[in-house]
Amino acid sequence: MKKYTTLSDIENLSDIIQKAIQLKENPFQFKALGTNKTLVMLFFNSSLRTRLSTEKAAKNLGMDVMILNVHDSWNLEFEDGANMNLSTSEHIKEAAQVISQYADIIAVRAFPSLTNKEKDESEYVLNSFVKYATVPIVSMESATAHPLQALADAITIEELRTKQRPKVVLSWAPHPKVLPQAVANSFVEMMQNLDVDLTITHPEGYELSDDTIKNSLINYNQEGALKEADFVYVKNWSRYRDYGKILSQDLNWMMTTEKLGDAKFMHCLPVRRNVVVEDAVLDSDQSVVIEQANNRTFSAQIVLKQILENLDR
Amino acid sequence: MKKYTTLSDIENLSDIIQKAIQLKENPFQFKALGTNKTLVMLFFNSSLRTRLSTEKAAKNLGMDVMILNVHDSWNLEFEDGANMNLSTSEHIKEAAQVISQYADIIAVRAFPSLTNKEKDESEYVLNSFVKYATVPIVSMESATAHPLQALADAITIEELRTKQRPKVVLSWAPHPKVLPQAVANSFVEMMQNLDVDLTITHPEGYELSDDTIKNSLINYNQEGALKEADFVYVKNWSRYRDYGKILSQDLNWMMTTEKLGDAKFMHCLPVRRNVVVEDAVLDSDQSVVIEQANNRTFSAQIVLKQILENLDR
Amino acid sequence: MKKYTTLSDIENLSDIIQKAIQLKENPFQFKALGTNKTLVMLFFNSSLRTRLSTEKAAKNLGMDVMILNVHDSWNLEFEDGANMNLSTSEHIKEAAQVISQYADIIAVRAFPSLTNKEKDESEYVLNSFVKYATVPIVSMESATAHPLQALADAITIEELRTKQRPKVVLSWAPHPKVLPQAVANSFVEMMQNLDVDLTITHPEGYELSDDTIKNSLINYNQEGALKEADFVYVKNWSRYRDYGKILSQDLNWMMTTEKLGDAKFMHCLPVRRNVVVEDAVLDSDQSVVIEQANNRTFSAQIVLKQILENLDR
Repeated sequence: MKKYTTLSDIENLSDIIQKAIQLKENPFQFKALGTNKTLVMLFFNSSLRTRLSTEKAAKNLGMDVMILNVHDSWNLEFEDGANMNLSTSEHIKEAAQVISQYADIIAVRAFPSLTNKEKDESEYVLNSFVKYATVPIVSMESATAHPLQALADAITIEELRTKQRPKVVLSWAPHPKVLPQAVANSFVEMMQNLDVDLTITHPEGYELSDDTIKNSLINYNQEGALKEADFVYVKNWSRYRDYGKILSQDLNWMMTTEKLGDAKFMHCLPVRRNVVVEDAVLDSDQSVVIEQANNRTFSAQIVLKQILENLDR
Repeated sequence: MKKYTTLSDIENLSDIIQKAIQLKENPFQFKALGTNKTLVMLFFNSSLRTRLSTEKAAKNLGMDVMILNVHDSWNLEFEDGANMNLSTSEHIKEAAQVISQYADIIAVRAFPSLTNKEKDESEYVLNSFVKYATVPIVSMESATAHPLQALADAITIEELRTKQRPKVVLSWAPHPKVLPQAVANSFVEMMQNLDVDLTITHPEGYELSDDTIKNSLINYNQEGALKEADFVYVKNWSRYRDYGKILSQDLNWMMTTEKLGDAKFMHCLPVRRNVVVEDAVLDSDQSVVIEQANNRTFSAQIVLKQILENLDR
Repeated sequence: MKKYTTLSDIENLSDIIQKAIQLKENPFQFKALGTNKTLVMLFFNSSLRTRLSTEKAAKNLGMDVMILNVHDSWNLEFEDGANMNLSTSEHIKEAAQVISQYADIIAVRAFPSLTNKEKDESEYVLNSFVKYATVPIVSMESATAHPLQALADAITIEELRTKQRPKVVLSWAPHPKVLPQAVANSFVEMMQNLDVDLTITHPEGYELSDDTIKNSLINYNQEGALKEADFVYVKNWSRYRDYGKILSQDLNWMMTTEKLGDAKFMHCLPVRRNVVVEDAVLDSDQSVVIEQANNRTFSAQIVLKQILENLDR
């Protein structure tokens, strides 16, 4: 693995999932691998799980970690040829090359604007680092994708599935804020690469991009979609077509124990209780959100491990 | 020791004080104990001494440390059954369980509101972590107590006392801001458990809670209280009865060399010079505030050490 | 070396430059030296390069690093005898002594006000740490000097020079903001101590202090100054005489490939493209700004190493 900014950077998905599960048995067995190697984590946006789990993953591998909240320094310029006489103090060309001098791997978190679809889809922040940095880049969630989360989700499903081909439902949920499609995008893409039966359910108008949906089944009827589900992944996202808009906050789409049936409940967290999902679901044994969060460490660790091994070659 | 959120978590006070003093001789002798163990430090409020000394203590034991300023991520919800459609993004139930996946010990700093006595006394932030986290919790100062400070104070008195039963005076001081009772509470409770002769002095109206005072002697006359004192601990706090109110900023209560006599001067820091205490006291050899700050490392280190030893059992 | 706050703390300049270059060959060879030693980095101002390179340097030496953004805690008081009943919560006397309890070396970044020349030139922040701390102090840029940058610049010139005595030009550049003289001051002072032919060029009115200039050549004609230059260091600074004022933002002073000729282009970064220097220069092989940034690690590392060695004596 040479970087991890999209799921397509994974060379062998079932292999990486199995190796992540093995890592959990003894997270410290590869501590020599990261000795004298440094992960620089750059946050353009706030983080709890991603920050702690990625830092933990790197330290489990023996790496040093340096963290920079980018807005604690100054605004970066991303436009080619910009006349920088205004609010930006440093061009990404220099910043990415400079940070590469201090890092063996750079991890970046940069959310979308949700106002400019074209700019968001260009992934200009993440891809500028890919372009100008001289060390491998790992996405800690970008404008359109959250590949470390999707890998943790795949690990969780692999660990908990009780049949060869489980039924997995991605179920949209209401939310008071305008949220990215990143988690949903990466979850759908990941499921398309696993041996699962995927259904996506959401109110009409909340369709994800065609590039994401591909041949996946969409069912606008939540009740129908959820029938005989083994795993139900609940998540809000704002509209893709009428970009970044909210069409509905309809609490009828909130997940309940009744709707969930016997399925496992999944969510990437943070989750708003009694808006996205009722308390009874989260407080039940069917909720696996804490195990998903735990697997964030091992999805990050297997990715960093594979990149480190590639550095050494 | 299974956690350290109140002084009552200490099983054998004189033993822990002696062991802390021994740690100072060679702070690095137990570095193997913390290997592959992680301390997550969560700050709901700002910190200088507590942050640096606790991080140092953990690293002296060989632990990894991850630090999160909670408000750099998002607002946590603490109410059971809350409908989270407003400003809070994650419930403490998830947050505490999730962080427990990445930590072997969690340390928390969360100050009181000083406007809602009942809520502050419930210690809802700290106690929610105790309730929902699956790893031990250490208080880095909560709404009503500062047990790591009190242990450092006890170590300092043990190191510096020249008689079996020294006279210790807690003397209120003026301050321009509304401050918690936490340091005073924990200091009083700690002194009640040591072989010292304790007097508390403050203007009428500044009485600490009955639960704190117990049988301790209160003398409203500062001059009388200070007579033949061996250690004088100076500290401001706001009113407990008329909760969070300031009744007096009377500079006559400021500590001076004249009032101090031959006693040692103690303060938890930060201290406002020439408001709480005059320059001449802090700049004299009688001030032991720097030694108290130094002992913060060893109070945190002995606590973390005992918790780590208990994990291993 | 007992501290590093001014270039005069360097005992043998050519020796330290050679040792820094040797460090680059194997940055981890002295990792035992920093074991159980802690660097505390204090930021009164934001930082990207300085923060990451200094942290990396310390970790290369095996040190632990603790970082505090000072304004995340509270305002410090620097006045002797201050009556601290207003906005400052802790006096530098206590803060510096306390932090010294947790650190083996303290690094400080504190920019000038650029409004009060006398106060800035007193270097009251940095020098208060020198005065009150009980461990060595390293400047990570102060009001009037940036000695770690100047040392990195000297290393870069030593590595890249193709003649015994290269011609070095410091060329002022326009900038939309009021910037310190610190980088220019330290660069000039450093060049005065190297075997180089130094010319300083800037619009009339932008003279640096007489203490800085000494006998160095000033040429107000940029074209003339740049003739046959081997290294051109471009940098904006605000006026010293009419302190902190901007007289010109004349883009005619921007560096271009045409003006640069065959010289190497140097800048401390961050740099505003197409204001300070045109894209074509930064994107050419003549630009050595990334190598300068890389050498920040080794200038910090050789300084920390020499201070650590002095601690051990």
